[in-house]
Amino acid sequence: MTSDGSNLRAACYVGERTLTVVEAEPRRPGDGEVAIDVAYTGICGTDLHILHGAMDARVTLPAVLGHEMSGTIAAIGNGVEGWSIGERVTVMPLAPCGHCPACRAGYSHICHNLDFLGIDSPGSMQSSWNVPADALVGLPAALSLEHAALAEPTAVAVHDVRRAALEEGERAVVVGGGPIGLLVACAARARGADVIVVEPAERRRTIAQVVGLQAVDPSGVDVQAFVSDWTDGAGAEVAFEVSGAVAGIETAIQSLGVRGRIVVVAIHATPPPVNLFRMFWRELTLIGARVYERPDFEEAVNLLETGAIPAAELITRIEPLDAVADAFAELESGRAMKVLIDCRTGG
Amino acid sequence: MTSDGSNLRAACYVGERTLTVVEAEPRRPGDGEVAIDVAYTGICGTDLHILHGAMDARVTLPAVLGHEMSGTIAAIGNGVEGWSIGERVTVMPLAPCGHCPACRAGYSHICHNLDFLGIDSPGSMQSSWNVPADALVGLPAALSLEHAALAEPTAVAVHDVRRAALEEGERAVVVGGGPIGLLVACAARARGADVIVVEPAERRRTIAQVVGLQAVDPSGVDVQAFVSDWTDGAGAEVAFEVSGAVAGIETAIQSLGVRGRIVVVAIHATPPPVNLFRMFWRELTLIGARVYERPDFEEAVNLLETGAIPAAELITRIEPLDAVADAFAELESGRAMKVLIDCRTGG
Repeated sequence: MTSDGSNLRAACYVGERTLTVVEAEPRRPGDGEVAIDVAYTGICGTDLHILHGAMDARVTLPAVLGHEMSGTIAAIGNGVEGWSIGERVTVMPLAPCGHCPACRAGYSHICHNLDFLGIDSPGSMQSSWNVPADALVGLPAALSLEHAALAEPTAVAVHDVRRAALEEGERAVVVGGGPIGLLVACAARARGADVIVVEPAERRRTIAQVVGLQAVDPSGVDVQAFVSDWTDGAGAEVAFEVSGAVAGIETAIQSLGVRGRIVVVAIHATPPPVNLFRMFWRELTLIGARVYERPDFEEAVNLLETGAIPAAELITRIEPLDAVADAFAELESGRAMKVLIDCRTGG
Repeated sequence: MTSDGSNLRAACYVGERTLTVVEAEPRRPGDGEVAIDVAYTGICGTDLHILHGAMDARVTLPAVLGHEMSGTIAAIGNGVEGWSIGERVTVMPLAPCGHCPACRAGYSHICHNLDFLGIDSPGSMQSSWNVPADALVGLPAALSLEHAALAEPTAVAVHDVRRAALEEGERAVVVGGGPIGLLVACAARARGADVIVVEPAERRRTIAQVVGLQAVDPSGVDVQAFVSDWTDGAGAEVAFEVSGAVAGIETAIQSLGVRGRIVVVAIHATPPPVNLFRMFWRELTLIGARVYERPDFEEAVNLLETGAIPAAELITRIEPLDAVADAFAELESGRAMKVLIDCRTGG
């Protein structure tokens, strides 16, 4: 429910590449739930995929999108303890089943029956959002709600860095300089690694440089030779494939020295060719990484608070809920890095 | 040099799919080398590749093949300490450069400039073989020279199991039941894992069963469903891709539960499609593994001595050096599991 009892407003994907803003009566939070007055919701590449119809088999229409957010607790359901109305929060948008083999093995974030809030159930691109209290993550006073909306993609980056077991002083090549690529690069840098970003788009390389990252243009530079020089012939210890391109996988693999680790961050829906000969020759390890676990989310909030994640430079625009379709188009154009929807101002 | 001063006899690949046996004057072992009277040399799949011309760019003709062997020290060069004439040995056929980034990082087995004895320099398919003393591995009295000839491929298997970080009680799927597949399965079993072997060839499944392994025919059984039943829906912890087939990679990946590890043992010369979506979805890890390190070789000798590796059942035939071409043909036919050349009886 909304804090003032008014109707909520929500951005819905209704099929056929169409987003509409609808008004609805808010629902009281159920047992174990809280209602959040949503402040900001970021648009993710996955939201674009949904808008393009690529996930129609998974989503239920009309679908309220959004899973990168910040807000304030507006109401608390029965059985919720430890949270108060008015608290500033973000949400780790995973609701695991608790009883499948993944949950039993301690990997509930990749639960076999995972409910991903904002994909499998309604998301945060609405003025009021009910979520399980288990999903809440508190925000420190020094972190603005704008910046806190980056907690979810930052948690992805922190998880990727953790899956890589990246250590201080190691060299990391981040292939792809979009929002997740730059977050991975910043999270790797915060871990003490030396980082380069490989990105063909000049606009993105410029943002990388603005936030202090070294960016290489693979259309003009031989990346393998560059990395070899950079690492005195050894190759990098870690590569992150964030481009989603087949060529990006090969760039990542060729960048690595013996026993190097490649974390595949981008989703490759179709099995791409992978250079298993090089994997064998240098005894490389390829690591799948999906979403995050609670320590990743807490670390993400911490990195945003300290400024290790330069949120202000990564947020290109903030648009009201009514302009959601334009905001998606802006992101799709490639001109924007991160676009937030202000879910409070859609009225 | 030979122990009795006679000429040595060697099986050489001379190009055009041809092996010939030549006679030559033995060379005294150089500084840091020993001369070995070779007893047995096993034929490896790599030797078949060389015979087929697939590695002509790498080998120097005429090429003495062979890198799986056992024998007795016949002569000792200057500067060699700790070894005596008459000692029974096998050889870890790797001569690293000692100064490249891989060697400096402690991974000399995947040295950037590795000299693989029997590929990059002359091998053991000859009656007398000079090797660096650093490559020697001593044999226990209880291990026969026939069985010791399996030390090298067994070391491959031990290395693969170690790269998988396989633990007692874990479930492992071995895709491919040829010589290396069965050695991997036996090494995994010795490590305390529950193992199944996936192999379409009935002859190979029969040998797997003879040595006490459970073998599944993927042409008649839905392997994924079988593994799901076997693991109560969880999937296996580890898979070894030893088939070299594109379908084998997918079988291995689909067999795994969350956070499962796949070790790619087979060499895939052309980048095959790899299901990175599944790697992502279940947070799998794909691990490249190449040859072995000294502890693997020592463990291999130990497993052969204890009988954990059923050498007698895996050695199909032993042929004299003069019959080397027939022995290669026998292996190529698929009728044999492991064929040894008796390098003492080629006269």
